[in-house]
Amino acid sequence: METVPESHRYLLDAQFATLATVGPDGRPQLSEVWFLVLEAGVGISLSTARQKTKNLLRRPECSLLILDVANPFKYLELRGDAEIEPDDDFAFAERVGAKYGADLRAYDAPEDKRVVVRIRPVRVNAVDMGG
Amino acid sequence: METVPESHRYLLDAQFATLATVGPDGRPQLSEVWFLVLEAGVGISLSTARQKTKNLLRRPECSLLILDVANPFKYLELRGDAEIEPDDDFAFAERVGAKYGADLRAYDAPEDKRVVVRIRPVRVNAVDMGG
Repeated sequence: METVPESHRYLLDAQFATLATVGPDGRPQLSEVWFLVLEAGVGISLSTARQKTKNLLRRPECSLLILDVANPFKYLELRGDAEIEPDDDFAFAERVGAKYGADLRAYDAPEDKRVVVRIRPVRVNAVDMGG
Repeated sequence: METVPESHRYLLDAQFATLATVGPDGRPQLSEVWFLVLEAGVGISLSTARQKTKNLLRRPECSLLILDVANPFKYLELRGDAEIEPDDDFAFAERVGAKYGADLRAYDAPEDKRVVVRIRPVRVNAVDMGG
């Protein structure tokens, strides 16, 4: 993610990001997600039972905002299309869980599957409204 | 906003919210905004020069996420349709500015106009992933 300017690169170490998807009614939907920084973007582990996952399968256009929670004037917005792959052995969920010291499947029902959602930004907005 | 549960009402006192609009390409767009709590929802003062304002004029469907920056497991998502009115005398911009001790027009070009954006939630999601 060489497109993220130096001034905002520390935000890639943040713990949470806000993911925006578009629902079947055309309305954006927001939720907080955990993420991993990958070579060419950001990776998220999602349960297929979640509405945001269904939204992305139908409409991959999405956006991710990483806020500086200590200074909310500063944030990074990454816009891109979700590339979705099965994570049937939960290998990626475990990678994300290792970052957070958490078991992601504890949030799921036993029958839920997980997918890897990769977002390669097509546009990066590095904002500092306090500047 | 009687639909906001007691457990999340304190978030209405937060300083920032993340506004999601849908762009002309169908992609959600995110930015941080200041807001006022109104009797029947949330009010935002936006410059007509901003892409998010143009998005809302075209597609009023939007969503607002108010994050507990001290505990990002907790947040409130308000989904609704933006109702947009001119703020030609900047009266509403001044009300918002008074909350923040700021002059909102300092962010605008001299020729920019402002609008009042009211969002009456049609759906409220009060989330606590750490619960």
